[in-house]
Amino acid sequence: MRRILILCLLIAVGTAHGSEGYRLERVEPANWWVGMKYNQVELLVYGQGISDLHPSIHYPGVSIQQVARVENANYLFVTLNIAANAKPGKFFIHFSNESDEKIVWEYYLLAREKGSAERQGFSPKDMIYLITPDRFANGNSRNDSLPELAEKADRMDKNGRHGGDIAGMIQHLDYLAGLGVTQIWPNPLTENNQPSYSYHGYATTNLYQIDARYGSNEDFKTFVTKARAKGIGVIKDIVVNHIGSEHWWMKDLPSRDWLNYPDQYRETNHRRTVIQDPYAAPEDKALFVDGWFVPTMPDLNQRNPHLARYLIQNSIWWVEYAGLSGIREDTYGYADEKFLSDWAKAIMDEYPNFNIVGEEWSSNPAVVAHWLRGKQNPSGHLPYMPSMMDFPIHEALRIALEEQEGWDTGLVKLYETLANDFIYPDPFNLVIFPENHDTSRIYSYLHDDIDLFKSAMIYMATMRGIPQLYYGSEVLLSSPRHRDDGAIRSDMPGGWSGDKKNAFTGKGLTNAERDAQDFIRTLFRWRKSADVIHHGKLQHFAPQDGTYVYFRYLDNRAVMVAINKNKQEKTLDLKRFNALLADKQFARDVISGKAVDIKVPLVLSPKQSLVIELK
Amino acid sequence: MRRILILCLLIAVGTAHGSEGYRLERVEPANWWVGMKYNQVELLVYGQGISDLHPSIHYPGVSIQQVARVENANYLFVTLNIAANAKPGKFFIHFSNESDEKIVWEYYLLAREKGSAERQGFSPKDMIYLITPDRFANGNSRNDSLPELAEKADRMDKNGRHGGDIAGMIQHLDYLAGLGVTQIWPNPLTENNQPSYSYHGYATTNLYQIDARYGSNEDFKTFVTKARAKGIGVIKDIVVNHIGSEHWWMKDLPSRDWLNYPDQYRETNHRRTVIQDPYAAPEDKALFVDGWFVPTMPDLNQRNPHLARYLIQNSIWWVEYAGLSGIREDTYGYADEKFLSDWAKAIMDEYPNFNIVGEEWSSNPAVVAHWLRGKQNPSGHLPYMPSMMDFPIHEALRIALEEQEGWDTGLVKLYETLANDFIYPDPFNLVIFPENHDTSRIYSYLHDDIDLFKSAMIYMATMRGIPQLYYGSEVLLSSPRHRDDGAIRSDMPGGWSGDKKNAFTGKGLTNAERDAQDFIRTLFRWRKSADVIHHGKLQHFAPQDGTYVYFRYLDNRAVMVAINKNKQEKTLDLKRFNALLADKQFARDVISGKAVDIKVPLVLSPKQSLVIELK
Repeated sequence: MRRILILCLLIAVGTAHGSEGYRLERVEPANWWVGMKYNQVELLVYGQGISDLHPSIHYPGVSIQQVARVENANYLFVTLNIAANAKPGKFFIHFSNESDEKIVWEYYLLAREKGSAERQGFSPKDMIYLITPDRFANGNSRNDSLPELAEKADRMDKNGRHGGDIAGMIQHLDYLAGLGVTQIWPNPLTENNQPSYSYHGYATTNLYQIDARYGSNEDFKTFVTKARAKGIGVIKDIVVNHIGSEHWWMKDLPSRDWLNYPDQYRETNHRRTVIQDPYAAPEDKALFVDGWFVPTMPDLNQRNPHLARYLIQNSIWWVEYAGLSGIREDTYGYADEKFLSDWAKAIMDEYPNFNIVGEEWSSNPAVVAHWLRGKQNPSGHLPYMPSMMDFPIHEALRIALEEQEGWDTGLVKLYETLANDFIYPDPFNLVIFPENHDTSRIYSYLHDDIDLFKSAMIYMATMRGIPQLYYGSEVLLSSPRHRDDGAIRSDMPGGWSGDKKNAFTGKGLTNAERDAQDFIRTLFRWRKSADVIHHGKLQHFAPQDGTYVYFRYLDNRAVMVAINKNKQEKTLDLKRFNALLADKQFARDVISGKAVDIKVPLVLSPKQSLVIELK
Repeated sequence: MRRILILCLLIAVGTAHGSEGYRLERVEPANWWVGMKYNQVELLVYGQGISDLHPSIHYPGVSIQQVARVENANYLFVTLNIAANAKPGKFFIHFSNESDEKIVWEYYLLAREKGSAERQGFSPKDMIYLITPDRFANGNSRNDSLPELAEKADRMDKNGRHGGDIAGMIQHLDYLAGLGVTQIWPNPLTENNQPSYSYHGYATTNLYQIDARYGSNEDFKTFVTKARAKGIGVIKDIVVNHIGSEHWWMKDLPSRDWLNYPDQYRETNHRRTVIQDPYAAPEDKALFVDGWFVPTMPDLNQRNPHLARYLIQNSIWWVEYAGLSGIREDTYGYADEKFLSDWAKAIMDEYPNFNIVGEEWSSNPAVVAHWLRGKQNPSGHLPYMPSMMDFPIHEALRIALEEQEGWDTGLVKLYETLANDFIYPDPFNLVIFPENHDTSRIYSYLHDDIDLFKSAMIYMATMRGIPQLYYGSEVLLSSPRHRDDGAIRSDMPGGWSGDKKNAFTGKGLTNAERDAQDFIRTLFRWRKSADVIHHGKLQHFAPQDGTYVYFRYLDNRAVMVAINKNKQEKTLDLKRFNALLADKQFARDVISGKAVDIKVPLVLSPKQSLVIELK
């Protein structure tokens, strides 16, 4: 009985006190599931002097495979082997020394949700909507500032916390579904208990905990469940490269090699080409991978096998716990190359139909392709990522729409960048995007030109790959043209009570904003069921005179996209496209809904882009 | 006896008249060699009504394997099979109809020069000097204008012929050898009997004939022999994509499909990405490959098997006849993809140690690499080229030296372009160049900045690959910064009698020109025996503060190159390079010859670049 009482206590405060000064503060992950392929889980056990003790378990189907001790006596790494026939339930882990049992910890084996292993990840059928949660909608103003978390809300500070949260995202699921959104990628929601500049989410202080200013782990799970009910999946933003400087590890590191450059701060050189460069100086390569981003983001050393397993398990845990349909992995190439493969492989082995997209911020397709599953790398590196962010197309699209047309400028850059797709094993699974939380707003980059903006959106909706928009694009959220994070991530109008303008209801929107929102809604609602876009082949024609035409086609259907960048009307002789048009009887402008006569030359208004559905 | 008389006549005028209106004008190639791997030679036989006749040969070891007739009755394609044990000598080809013999033609089987098959092609040991022969030196003023060739010399016209010739190149072999040149690549010397703008050489009107305004076939062979005696190889510039509109074929094509777009002129779109682009419209791809450059350059259809063999044999013929050490192939990707492999493979099979460099004018390494032997192309295309022109480095070097330094501008572009070398099967065999006959002069591009110019030359002399300079660079020949072919290819000072300035003797050179010439001479004479450059490995360090450092190293030797782009003096802390410097006792500045102290920080003067030899 006494033991049980102790357990109740530890569940309440998350700490187990033993006699003689032993304390058990954390066991991570706090639970696992029965029936996982990943069935050997290494628990990180943390508490005062814990390495003196020996763990034991008496539960059918669960055994301790290995116990590892590290430099710091406050850590134990205990590997559980969970048999396929183990029953879901709870059991105790007993921690004893030679004379006596000192601490027990209650552990949970859960049943998996049906179909969990076979879950479908985000795919070319989807449109991903990126949200900076702090800036989207404040659904619960009571959690804006909390006593246990350092930074308090200050909506007047563009670099401060504004109060957006999970409740806010839940409130607007109908709006998003109506816009054509089928996946939400929120910037990281895990705890960022940093003293300042914490709203972006990339300085995690607890990898197993949602930041209470956004809500609880349960709230996050509820958000995923409710989104799924609206046909929307949720993609978790995960960072394996670094943590926040206020992470609890930092006060008591498991070992010196838990971090890179643990003693002396060194900043990464950001020279990502070192990864494949046959001539890179070893010093530069080490600095790229091991250097820190900023002093507030300690760089993790994934070559440490305990840390590697911790990170892999943490990712799988969130997929299984919350019911995710994807992962977006931050600053991909900055982590250890071998680890990255192990990480991606473990997740994809567990969920073969899942999807993970990595961020490799390079306009060079050969740099991005290095990480993709199926790529034959001359270095021998065997990658496992199913998807990467298509930064080459991102950059080419912006330049193509913005710069003056010329022999080798303007649209031809987009055309030639797309031509590099032979470099990728599966370009149709890349994520394409006109902007994200780190770039200027596309509308602003295009000098507030609504026609060019619409061309960008049409490209997103019809090009190969999986389109990703950024919240507020649909109502023309703007930013400086140079990078200014706080300004790029400005508040979604209507997300805060008292907002005069409301993107969700339409109240107070200008005509241009309403027009943009209608345009995006029409386009992406259409895309939802446009299987010729989801599965169709692609053919494009070399740009001519400031126009660019491409087709998606499948069986007897096709979609023709024509972009006119000229300030003048342009007439396209459709004979050039005869091979793809000749058998078509029916043509409809997707935006206006009007029929199009494809037996005569096609007239494009100044800077007009058209999406024409053909049968 | 009568037959022999007829033969004498045909040798004299190159035409054999038979009875009943048969005429035999050409048999190409005019000879072949015994002991070639390529021992089945398809002769192009051209003459009035020749296809009516049947060829026969009675010579031990030579048999007719196949006789092919085409659309045009004035052509016969006769394949000779030459046995390994055939004896060199002459024999007759008899052309008969059913009733009677009509024409005979004397044919030659020659002995190969010793070591011909094993000849060493140009390699990383070499420095290639590109010459536009019409503009280099007029060694024989009697051949400047000739009655049988349409365009006459006019030195006042920048787009006209100026009179440079083979004799001029022969006269200056000592100068070139003294400069460090070990290979000469002249722009095409084959006959260009076009009415105007013929000096550049890329509109060939007879693929087996040196243009008489440069000299004879024999003169060319003499030039190669004399160059070899000075340690200089000769690289022939060959064009398989197109011919000149005054080529004799054009008056009487073998078949309609000898040319692409034979009936209606269509210009190539120059969109070279279509070759690998998985989405390229077939129409765009066809236009790229089949379209013409200009109306005066008919585009050859190498899918015609007779033309394909003609072109392959023509290339091998010149290697064997003249004793070449390399081929430079013009406008590489514009020819048929499959043919290009067959062509390169046939030459490299014949001469396994030979070298061929192709021109693929793209700054995208993945576009250039497509053609290189050993490259695994996703399309399955199997390439055979041992070398390509390194346009990506060419472009990056110019930009890197010219543009303002910044986080992602200036030297870092050169560094990151070089990092792409993992894309190439063998980057050490690429040809690097700061300028060629189609680009502005590097000195002018760099705004006449002698320091930056020297940095470019140092890069050329020390970087991996085979450096290629353009005639006159050593005396700072200048040009407009935009493309202006006639001005880029200006006359070499001293190449014409009466020139006030003489690059060969130094007479009349400015101090700056003399300084540049001395600099290049010192650098490339040193390079001639710098085996650490010929065979050494490469390591480079990410540029910092407008400086860029790299090393070549081999066994216990090394060369350190340090580029300072700043207008200020820069001090390099050599600790960063300790891994490569620590064991070195001896350090010498290659240009000044002075010792360098590598135990203290290295001071670079404003915009100074250093080459330091280390042991």
